[in-house]
Amino acid sequence: MSMIIGAGIIAMLIALVGTKFWINWLVKRQYGQFVRDDGPQTHSVKRGTPTMGGVVIVAAVVLAYFISHLIAGSPPSASGLLILGLLVGASFLGFLDDWAKISQQRSLGLSPRAKLIGQTALGFVFGYLALQFPDGRGTTPASQYVSFLRDIPWIKLPIILAIAWMTFLISAYSNAVNLTDGLDGLATGASGIVFGVYSLINIWQRNQWCGSELELQHLCYNVRNPNDLAGISVALAGACFGFLWWNARPAQIFMGDTGSLALGAAMAGMAVFTRTELLLTIMGMLFVVETASSAIQVGYFKLTHGKRFFKMAPIHHHFELLGWDEITVVIRFWIISCVAAVGAFGLFYAEWVVG
Amino acid sequence: MSMIIGAGIIAMLIALVGTKFWINWLVKRQYGQFVRDDGPQTHSVKRGTPTMGGVVIVAAVVLAYFISHLIAGSPPSASGLLILGLLVGASFLGFLDDWAKISQQRSLGLSPRAKLIGQTALGFVFGYLALQFPDGRGTTPASQYVSFLRDIPWIKLPIILAIAWMTFLISAYSNAVNLTDGLDGLATGASGIVFGVYSLINIWQRNQWCGSELELQHLCYNVRNPNDLAGISVALAGACFGFLWWNARPAQIFMGDTGSLALGAAMAGMAVFTRTELLLTIMGMLFVVETASSAIQVGYFKLTHGKRFFKMAPIHHHFELLGWDEITVVIRFWIISCVAAVGAFGLFYAEWVVG
Repeated sequence: MSMIIGAGIIAMLIALVGTKFWINWLVKRQYGQFVRDDGPQTHSVKRGTPTMGGVVIVAAVVLAYFISHLIAGSPPSASGLLILGLLVGASFLGFLDDWAKISQQRSLGLSPRAKLIGQTALGFVFGYLALQFPDGRGTTPASQYVSFLRDIPWIKLPIILAIAWMTFLISAYSNAVNLTDGLDGLATGASGIVFGVYSLINIWQRNQWCGSELELQHLCYNVRNPNDLAGISVALAGACFGFLWWNARPAQIFMGDTGSLALGAAMAGMAVFTRTELLLTIMGMLFVVETASSAIQVGYFKLTHGKRFFKMAPIHHHFELLGWDEITVVIRFWIISCVAAVGAFGLFYAEWVVG
Repeated sequence: MSMIIGAGIIAMLIALVGTKFWINWLVKRQYGQFVRDDGPQTHSVKRGTPTMGGVVIVAAVVLAYFISHLIAGSPPSASGLLILGLLVGASFLGFLDDWAKISQQRSLGLSPRAKLIGQTALGFVFGYLALQFPDGRGTTPASQYVSFLRDIPWIKLPIILAIAWMTFLISAYSNAVNLTDGLDGLATGASGIVFGVYSLINIWQRNQWCGSELELQHLCYNVRNPNDLAGISVALAGACFGFLWWNARPAQIFMGDTGSLALGAAMAGMAVFTRTELLLTIMGMLFVVETASSAIQVGYFKLTHGKRFFKMAPIHHHFELLGWDEITVVIRFWIISCVAAVGAFGLFYAEWVVG
């Protein structure tokens, strides 16, 4: 338990202090963000704010993991290393995108195709490895089942489909967090909330773990390395809130694709490893709704040959154009995220109580 | 459990919808807040924003409690009614203050003396009653012990001192939330966080309750009516976040003393009933720090015959005058509140794990 708490504190402190240094370094070199040209006009003042803050989030989580393991003298686990690999891999992909934007001096970055190929490759490698490394009880980090509150016993996928399903989740949530990251602090806060709930879920699974030596009253959870995953969830939450200190309005830095792709991928990875894949659609409802709003906008536009369903997609811009302050949208979306996350955790816990 | 969740949903919905109606009603009657004359100059634009939003919060919680009990067909409990009585009583005191401000058209309200007398009377009545009504196991809603993570066995107070201690807590936290309520959404969000953690504590105490018929693995909690208290905590959290929807910057309504005194008193009452009185200083650290900053400012001013320790007290104004945006102060103070609340819950849970 002290390793979990330690990881959270270390990650938060690194993100809090490190982001300030990162901002100074980026500003000195004039690496500013080029805000997309199709956002609301009021956003053009944001040109020049440094981006790639995700570097600090990812570094904070990785450092927190290894430092807390060194102090506790415990070796890293397969699940822990896989999630960290996924985080770093997705972050690197995002970094290439951010870097392309900065060096081309425009808001486009990598081609959508290159991004998708990168995400698919990453997802396949992760998915394949996540089905290896059985522990003493034969449990692998991921399973071949689709999961909601636990693995759903009647939806077992063939290995290749299981890998494709994980790849889809990673790609979908990476892009969803990326889309959501359009207002100061919005994606950072909402991600922090999701990882906060995953901290609770992991700690709960650790205490009710099938591999534990205690005799358990209720159904146990058949997952791999819940203790390590708990440390990483807490570190992710801590890093998000530490980064939010600087990313909240008026944002002094953006996380960039370096951050959003990494956080989305880590979310999906957590869902896979905790066997709560479909629950993530409730827990991360904001990200799902943001993505759906963009899809609806594009689909409606094509169907009606040019009409718009929302004033602007993704949906946070729609509310801005309705006259809400940027910060009002952010805080209200956070409230919705909190409610969704609490509701999801309630379902998870209720399933355990009811059995 | 469904009664607890139901209470939260009902309270949140009432606060969300009710506040809008309440704003419209107040605006139509031109009942605006007179912002204190000694705040930062930028705050003078806030004149005219309606206040007394606390009415909706309190109504939402009371209604949610009774509606959820009616639906579940379960009778109210002594602890539940006492907390609600405290909430309504403190709210009424705050209402008198708000009303005095509006009718006098200035920012003073009740005299500090009248407020203190009212709070003391309320605290004594609550404290006295809270030591009555033993349940079948002889447990009264409050105990004569001072508590941290549980009752501290070697600090048992004589009845009269126990009542005085509860009175002090109620008065201190009422005034602390009141002081904190100086920036849009600050006190509302921070209170919501505290009640969120109290929801977890109450649910945990309910599942590990000494009066339960299940055989428990660990030390149980000797409290009265944890199930009912959980419902009220969840309702308070729900009402805070529902109200925050409108109270976040730019605030369309303030909670007023009607809200802040009520929330502070309810917080203290929860601490008394869950036997976590001293833990509340960590969980509600923001409120403690805000109060301390005012006390330090006044004390330093007197000691040095006129020097100021902070640029302005309470401390949120200090940071505003350092050049932070109002919303930056609010979000950063929320982050600190979250960390403190999570830390406090961690201590509470760790005590149970260690035994």
